[in-house]
Amino acid sequence: MDLVIVGSVATDRLHLPSGVVHEAIGGSCVYAAIAATKFRIKVGIVGAIGGDERATKIVEFLSKFPIDLTGLERLDGQTFFWEGRYFEDMNQRETLSLSLGVFADFVPKIPDQYKSAKVLFLANISPQIQMELIQSVNADIVVLDTMDHWISSDKENLLSALKAVDLLIINDQEARLLGGSNSLIRSSNKIKEYLKGGNLIVKKGEHGSILFTPERMCFVPAYPLENPVDPTGAGDSFAGALLGAWLRLGLGRECLGAAMFYATATASFCVEGVGPTKLAECGLEEIEKRADVLNSLICRRWDSNPHVREDTWS
Amino acid sequence: MDLVIVGSVATDRLHLPSGVVHEAIGGSCVYAAIAATKFRIKVGIVGAIGGDERATKIVEFLSKFPIDLTGLERLDGQTFFWEGRYFEDMNQRETLSLSLGVFADFVPKIPDQYKSAKVLFLANISPQIQMELIQSVNADIVVLDTMDHWISSDKENLLSALKAVDLLIINDQEARLLGGSNSLIRSSNKIKEYLKGGNLIVKKGEHGSILFTPERMCFVPAYPLENPVDPTGAGDSFAGALLGAWLRLGLGRECLGAAMFYATATASFCVEGVGPTKLAECGLEEIEKRADVLNSLICRRWDSNPHVREDTWS
Repeated sequence: MDLVIVGSVATDRLHLPSGVVHEAIGGSCVYAAIAATKFRIKVGIVGAIGGDERATKIVEFLSKFPIDLTGLERLDGQTFFWEGRYFEDMNQRETLSLSLGVFADFVPKIPDQYKSAKVLFLANISPQIQMELIQSVNADIVVLDTMDHWISSDKENLLSALKAVDLLIINDQEARLLGGSNSLIRSSNKIKEYLKGGNLIVKKGEHGSILFTPERMCFVPAYPLENPVDPTGAGDSFAGALLGAWLRLGLGRECLGAAMFYATATASFCVEGVGPTKLAECGLEEIEKRADVLNSLICRRWDSNPHVREDTWS
Repeated sequence: MDLVIVGSVATDRLHLPSGVVHEAIGGSCVYAAIAATKFRIKVGIVGAIGGDERATKIVEFLSKFPIDLTGLERLDGQTFFWEGRYFEDMNQRETLSLSLGVFADFVPKIPDQYKSAKVLFLANISPQIQMELIQSVNADIVVLDTMDHWISSDKENLLSALKAVDLLIINDQEARLLGGSNSLIRSSNKIKEYLKGGNLIVKKGEHGSILFTPERMCFVPAYPLENPVDPTGAGDSFAGALLGAWLRLGLGRECLGAAMFYATATASFCVEGVGPTKLAECGLEEIEKRADVLNSLICRRWDSNPHVREDTWS
């Protein structure tokens, strides 16, 4: 197995500026896994669904993708349900209702064939469980996500887990909270010290992403979209695509920058559709095209006019 | 005269997370003019101060810089005073009090020696006055700033003024308001149509800036600061430095991207000090160094690992 993803599998009710979507398939595991499959690697997921009709729909949907579902447990109870409302600019959202269902007491079990995974991606779940999973899987690379809830309520266990993490992927609000400073740069440099690998990617939504490694800091803008539809799962798609691309590029730290272009391009498709609909449809060729466009949008100091030379300047 | 700047000259009271600064010299004209002088061009300002002690302090301060003050009128009354409070993350602020003083009924008069300016920069002032000034000065290039107040209250005159504008420099909130969409990209593409030159720069504070021209779109990140102190005047410093650098680079559209690096670097010094103190001190050599660093922080798709080639990928 190339990539094992542990996280939530859910049904979402989305209040978008364009209207309400009553039942969209969601969850960090779902978005990340679909995004990762674009890069033609072997992906397996570990998650839980209930015994309800929503679970049946989720399995039906996931079966369309080359995702190993051995680790998807069907338990007695309800499937995780999240209802959220986005504000007009879609940069902020609020949770309207949340029903954890079978996810509340879920203890992930790793199938044997997942235990030698090259990359283990622990999407948002309790730090205690993240630690146990890191110990139980013999992965070459451990990648973590977390959320404000765990940073506030269980920082001690989270910091313990981070000591075994090669790459942490979080958003800017989480980075400020975890790093303890309103300066994103100061917070990120602090977080690097917590990590085994010293590699951190901060996702800033429409403002792009920043890679911090022990050697460098590097900015990648978001893919410019005229008509964003639904940001749900964009961050998870980014992470899944990043790991898919990174696996294909050989998992060297020096390839993380290139992988971010694929992650950004893939996440942009996710935002263009309701739930995972557009993400599900897009192919590697389209992703490559957007990664090319993105590259052309990045300004270098002199590349807009190579005839202006620094030595003729001051 | 290379650059004539029309705008506010003020005293600010700043409530920063680090404490209250009771009297800082401020105003769009002041920040933009000081930033522009870094690039060793001829700068003249047009603005108004009162007959109070604050005015005396401002003149004393401005006299330290190679700025032509012929257009700075001393009128009977109080100098423009602004009091504002920044929120913890310094990305947002609120106005606590505002006393326009002599700026309220100020009708800018352009000194004769300014009338053949290469670049006319109209910082935030009423669109009606901006239009009159564009007509009265025979500038090669007209650059405009505006604010939400004018976009909401006098859009008609603003749109008329924009028809004579080569380059518009505004922030992202203003761009969304002026372009009529929550999508910054859609708004910006709409705004381009309003402009004579089709050139727009959108400033996004800590998230960098975006250049839109008829041919291209181009992103430049903000300079990463561990310890931002006071964002007051950062946008005006960005604009002043941009125009100073652009003048030195020959005013070709193809040089706007390079000029944005100098603008970003100069604005970063502004943010590191209270009011214009750090901006006042920094020199071109330091600015160049930061422009170099900024350039090294920008990730290209393959430059982190040039051995990974696109044709070996899919």
